[in-house]
Amino acid sequence: MIDTITSDELKDILLNGTPETIKKVITNIHPADILDILHEDEDSIKALMDNLPNDVVASIIEEEDDEDDQYDLLKLFSDAKQKEILDEMSNDEITDLIGELEEDEKQAILDKMDKEDKEDVERLLTFDPDTAGGIMTTEYISIRARNTVEKTLKFLQENTEEDTTYYLYVVDPQNILKGVVSLRDIVTSSFDTAMLDITNTNVKTVLYNEDQEEVAKKFQKYGFIMMPVVDEMDHLLGVIEFDDIIDIIQEESTEDINLLGGVNSEERLDSSVGESVKSRIPWLIVNLFTAVMAASVVSFFEGTIAQVVTLATVMPIVTGMGGNAGTQSLTIVVRGLSLGEMSKENATWIMLKEVAVGFCSGVIIGIIVALGSMLFEGNPVFGLVTGLAMFLNMILANIAGYFIPVILEKFHIDPALASGVFVTTVTDVLGFFFFLGLATVFLPYLI
Amino acid sequence: MIDTITSDELKDILLNGTPETIKKVITNIHPADILDILHEDEDSIKALMDNLPNDVVASIIEEEDDEDDQYDLLKLFSDAKQKEILDEMSNDEITDLIGELEEDEKQAILDKMDKEDKEDVERLLTFDPDTAGGIMTTEYISIRARNTVEKTLKFLQENTEEDTTYYLYVVDPQNILKGVVSLRDIVTSSFDTAMLDITNTNVKTVLYNEDQEEVAKKFQKYGFIMMPVVDEMDHLLGVIEFDDIIDIIQEESTEDINLLGGVNSEERLDSSVGESVKSRIPWLIVNLFTAVMAASVVSFFEGTIAQVVTLATVMPIVTGMGGNAGTQSLTIVVRGLSLGEMSKENATWIMLKEVAVGFCSGVIIGIIVALGSMLFEGNPVFGLVTGLAMFLNMILANIAGYFIPVILEKFHIDPALASGVFVTTVTDVLGFFFFLGLATVFLPYLI
Repeated sequence: MIDTITSDELKDILLNGTPETIKKVITNIHPADILDILHEDEDSIKALMDNLPNDVVASIIEEEDDEDDQYDLLKLFSDAKQKEILDEMSNDEITDLIGELEEDEKQAILDKMDKEDKEDVERLLTFDPDTAGGIMTTEYISIRARNTVEKTLKFLQENTEEDTTYYLYVVDPQNILKGVVSLRDIVTSSFDTAMLDITNTNVKTVLYNEDQEEVAKKFQKYGFIMMPVVDEMDHLLGVIEFDDIIDIIQEESTEDINLLGGVNSEERLDSSVGESVKSRIPWLIVNLFTAVMAASVVSFFEGTIAQVVTLATVMPIVTGMGGNAGTQSLTIVVRGLSLGEMSKENATWIMLKEVAVGFCSGVIIGIIVALGSMLFEGNPVFGLVTGLAMFLNMILANIAGYFIPVILEKFHIDPALASGVFVTTVTDVLGFFFFLGLATVFLPYLI
Repeated sequence: MIDTITSDELKDILLNGTPETIKKVITNIHPADILDILHEDEDSIKALMDNLPNDVVASIIEEEDDEDDQYDLLKLFSDAKQKEILDEMSNDEITDLIGELEEDEKQAILDKMDKEDKEDVERLLTFDPDTAGGIMTTEYISIRARNTVEKTLKFLQENTEEDTTYYLYVVDPQNILKGVVSLRDIVTSSFDTAMLDITNTNVKTVLYNEDQEEVAKKFQKYGFIMMPVVDEMDHLLGVIEFDDIIDIIQEESTEDINLLGGVNSEERLDSSVGESVKSRIPWLIVNLFTAVMAASVVSFFEGTIAQVVTLATVMPIVTGMGGNAGTQSLTIVVRGLSLGEMSKENATWIMLKEVAVGFCSGVIIGIIVALGSMLFEGNPVFGLVTGLAMFLNMILANIAGYFIPVILEKFHIDPALASGVFVTTVTDVLGFFFFLGLATVFLPYLI
């Protein structure tokens, strides 16, 4: 808008401006934009950061997604300055930052924090990072709901230290959560409204040990900006904000995509060669094992192939197409499971649908393949064998594509993890078996 | 919490309660929870909905994700009641609801709306649904920033009609966006603070024609709850809220997963048999075509296979493993592209990494396959041929897995869409060619 500033201008000011100019300019600049400049010009990071006030440095470090890079940014500064920066950072960000560090590095950071924050971070560190407790922040505002709106506004005006968020939480003297008030309701209610009148007592909460994926589903269902985290006794422990949820949703999707593609859930575009090889080789070996299983079916029919060599040409089509159909079916089922769209009510219908789709695909692709191979070989029986094997394999591919992820889910194994391997094993083994088996039966008509 | 009510209790009250009880109970119930009850018991939908006030019915319809189901819910009611419900719904929700309807149904809904809302919806309908204009809402609060905080609070207290959101937008008399004020800043500033002092003039905006995926990336980068949508002249057109962004992120991931799995981006778990067949058959036919291409390579070498039938047993292993390695590599690259993680700076490094990973995998899997097939056939040359073909195919698989999505992206084709087909074509065709070609060269040692 009006005050827009290019990133080159900003960079120039950060490097060469007086402290006053810098302070004036950065008030309205989003830390994510400063972080972009740092990423573009890694050599000037220290020079750029040196001129920034501590709270801005803290926000920039918080913006950085990668915990290793967060630590590298922090380490640019002297111990004294680190202390000041840590003081400006939120405790849940510090917890994430030090969560992956070595024990001595972790302790060194903790020792730079004041007692209260240190205890807070140490407590946050006890929660599993993939649970509600691991993603919550302890910086929220809790109130008693005995005041009017006007008194509450005055209280907020005097207590701006905490990063005021979009809800105030009403607790009793034992810190048990009793209700929630939204800032929206505060600003739209007359000054003399009693806070109790705008307090919603039917609060949706998450338990500290709930899996982050379940937490994300609640946020999505209700469209909340924040949710309170409680223990079994409804003591308020912290709050989770929507921006962490967006990251979790993105992360869970990436994990599904990775697993469906046969790589570890943690591999990313910027993983090292070693990490990538370690992520991929185990899956390749599992696949090799199943490929050998399929090959042993072929081996069993070598006598048939020796007499009709064209079978070798056509057989990868039958298995490959089955693999494709099975993958289609499992893709839809795995994603549906992952989004929680599969229920007791619709499970049977979806199974029947997959069988029906397999039947239709089997008929269509079966006829095309039958006609094609009949013309290619000039033998109607050859066409019949190919088409029939194709048809059977397509139906079974869809049945496998439905049942394998559903059964894995029942055994609490991530269906994205292993479905692909199982489904293609089924389509390869059965594809070869149907095709070469039928060919052996009809051998007299094929020679 | 304290006021928690089970869904059976709620259902009972909705069906049998007096209007007063119902009104009292539902104040604190989230519409998403009522929608759950409707989904569980489709037969009672009308009976359950009949006792609810219009604004609650409107929120329930808005909660429903599926536009067809939204329309079905609305149609349960008489024309007069529909009019009242539509009056309570937000215009962007109505726009989404009628966007997919037939022209006459669309017109019937529009005719039930009052003039102003109707014009608003008609204007919203002109935006592409996948752009910022298509997802924005026009219900936001714009102000002139000449007042104090206290006057603004009074203004908000008197204007609670509009669903007050978390930011107020400052515009000039021509409705040109000048700045933004957050509710947080309003409640934490003293009553006599000038609004200008807490107005941020460096507003991040999105253009009305920006793709929703780009909009989602901006939300993620900055962690915003809302963003204003403007035209080329900075006129404020509407705002986008974070909950729509979560849906978009989920949707874009689902589309990627679908395309990587070889089904259309629109197919879902609850698609009909007809929709699923239409989604999958085209891809199966494309795959059939590439499978025939690969088979024609095999066909070319039938003479060799006729002399060493075991080649037919081993060849699917070579191509299959290449396909797996290529899929791994393209999975990481496609997801990276989709998350915007690939840049000019890291592209070369990632390419070299993929080649290196292909080399390592090729060596490891090549040696295993070579030893295995040597023992199986009792012939070191057979092992050499298999291992070498495996090695070459793995390296090429990774090169294809990198370059194919990157090139498709350059041509503005969604890399998730077609990469899989191309990569497996490469690994099949070249896998057969390397293996059977080498076997032909070394034929005298294999017989």
